[in-house]
Amino acid sequence: MVNLKDLAKELNVSVSTVSKALKSSHEIGAETKKRVIELAQKMGYSPNPYAGFLRHHKSKTIALIAPELTNNYFIQAISGAESVAQEKDYHLLIYCTNDEFAKEESILKHLQNGRVDGVIMSLSTATQSYQHLNDLIQSGIPIVFFDRICHEIETAKITTDDFTSGFNATEHLIQNGSKDIAYLSISENLSIDNKRKQGYLEALNKHNIEANPSRIIKCTGDEKNNYKKIKQLFQSDKIPDGVFASIEKLALSTYYVCNELNINIPKDTKVICFSNLRTAPLLNPSLTTITQPAYEMGKQAAAILFKNLDKKRSLISNENIILKSELIVRDSTKK
Amino acid sequence: MVNLKDLAKELNVSVSTVSKALKSSHEIGAETKKRVIELAQKMGYSPNPYAGFLRHHKSKTIALIAPELTNNYFIQAISGAESVAQEKDYHLLIYCTNDEFAKEESILKHLQNGRVDGVIMSLSTATQSYQHLNDLIQSGIPIVFFDRICHEIETAKITTDDFTSGFNATEHLIQNGSKDIAYLSISENLSIDNKRKQGYLEALNKHNIEANPSRIIKCTGDEKNNYKKIKQLFQSDKIPDGVFASIEKLALSTYYVCNELNINIPKDTKVICFSNLRTAPLLNPSLTTITQPAYEMGKQAAAILFKNLDKKRSLISNENIILKSELIVRDSTKK
Repeated sequence: MVNLKDLAKELNVSVSTVSKALKSSHEIGAETKKRVIELAQKMGYSPNPYAGFLRHHKSKTIALIAPELTNNYFIQAISGAESVAQEKDYHLLIYCTNDEFAKEESILKHLQNGRVDGVIMSLSTATQSYQHLNDLIQSGIPIVFFDRICHEIETAKITTDDFTSGFNATEHLIQNGSKDIAYLSISENLSIDNKRKQGYLEALNKHNIEANPSRIIKCTGDEKNNYKKIKQLFQSDKIPDGVFASIEKLALSTYYVCNELNINIPKDTKVICFSNLRTAPLLNPSLTTITQPAYEMGKQAAAILFKNLDKKRSLISNENIILKSELIVRDSTKK
Repeated sequence: MVNLKDLAKELNVSVSTVSKALKSSHEIGAETKKRVIELAQKMGYSPNPYAGFLRHHKSKTIALIAPELTNNYFIQAISGAESVAQEKDYHLLIYCTNDEFAKEESILKHLQNGRVDGVIMSLSTATQSYQHLNDLIQSGIPIVFFDRICHEIETAKITTDDFTSGFNATEHLIQNGSKDIAYLSISENLSIDNKRKQGYLEALNKHNIEANPSRIIKCTGDEKNNYKKIKQLFQSDKIPDGVFASIEKLALSTYYVCNELNINIPKDTKVICFSNLRTAPLLNPSLTTITQPAYEMGKQAAAILFKNLDKKRSLISNENIILKSELIVRDSTKK
């Protein structure tokens, strides 16, 4: 590996001259700068990133923390953040909490010592206390939240219009004939889930349909348990004639349950969900979705983080950025 | 941030004593070690990772480089690698080449200065020269390949039984009645594609079906161009009665084309492909797949890399690890 000393020797100047020339110091003449830079390029000199960190307290690295990786929403968000990081010449670390609070805590603790300059994250469904988030911010590392945000922390937060989308999804079911609509909830801890549910309740209210608490299914367990709960729902004497799933995998479980029990979608029950599934148009039947601008959300989260890093701000002021989701009507909610 | 000096002051011992105690040096008594470690935990001391790097030449970080991120195969592989990295207390950087050679080159150049201890990667479809790979290895950073491997580089490579799977996929189509089978190829540069194609040709040969070069469709462009090529295939006078897609997205394009042209799958043409799509059973019709153990491949690639890092080996000896893919028969190839 080529270092400053090698360059200095080759050019017959001091190490300090080489170092200053590479930093474009005014103490060094233009001709010398040119010679140093050309030789550095020729010999393949590149500064040691960690030495650079110790000098400038910059790791040129950010982290993205997601509750799951095998999920179309998060993958598209990661892809968006990654594109901004590459543009900014930053490196992107990826961490997955598997929706576990202890893992989320441990990952944040690991980041406290300055491995990254900032963090983009979406909370786990199990997170109910926020000390670990405050600790990270107080150690000088800013956090920007996207989707599964934390209201209690002052910083920038990117979400979609969850209340309105929940309202529109439910009203769409009602307009296509559903009267007895189940809401599949992922976690009461998450503000996005609560907002989607509020939208659902508001739409029922507007159309004079009495909300039935037993139709709000808490799918807070693992995939197997959620499947069981949805199956129970469809094995009762009176099955719901509409299902609004707060996230994609609960809608897919509903499809599997209906396949197993020979329940026809959309004849017997209609299905709508929040989803970024690329194959939604190819499903049997094609799936009506509320689609979030996931790529754009990841991009914006990264852009806001970099804006603050550029200004050397570790405390990001409160800001709620709300992007619009899109209702895409397909056969699963057909009249 | 708490440093060694703070701990030393608090305990009224020298910085060197604290440092040695934390490294569990035999020069320090058990009682002192205990006091230092307890205080370090209490005061939230954690060593600066980059200072550690400069001392030990270890970044405790590995990189995974994939040609695309919004692809079920790579996401599952990343998830597998991430699980091993967390277990090993390592950090995982993710890079995406977007299947571009220039981007792959630039990413590897960035990693040469020691930001990571090792790399797991899958080549871009455009990669035809390998100097950038050799440069990285010569700078002391080992590479383990998975799936889209490079035969020309001596190291460990994880693939699946691509020839056998290609053979089985084609034979399955023949056994279900297909005689005129198209092969959708993604890139002639990739050994996995060549092996899948060889398997296809061998199965045709075994069943005395003459291979027709015009049935090998080179889908090497972007999604739009590939769609056009597949559409042309199905707009000809005689459409193929079977399609074997080398990767998932080409099969999905085939579904969209058949939808558009009112061609019935599996009656008019049967479709099989390499795929890790979780919704394959829910498609219309459900999709017959060759499914690779993607999660396991990512896990094994990371495990081999760590085994060599533990032994401080930057040159990994040649090893071909071949895992088995699974043929999952569904309705898209029904007789």
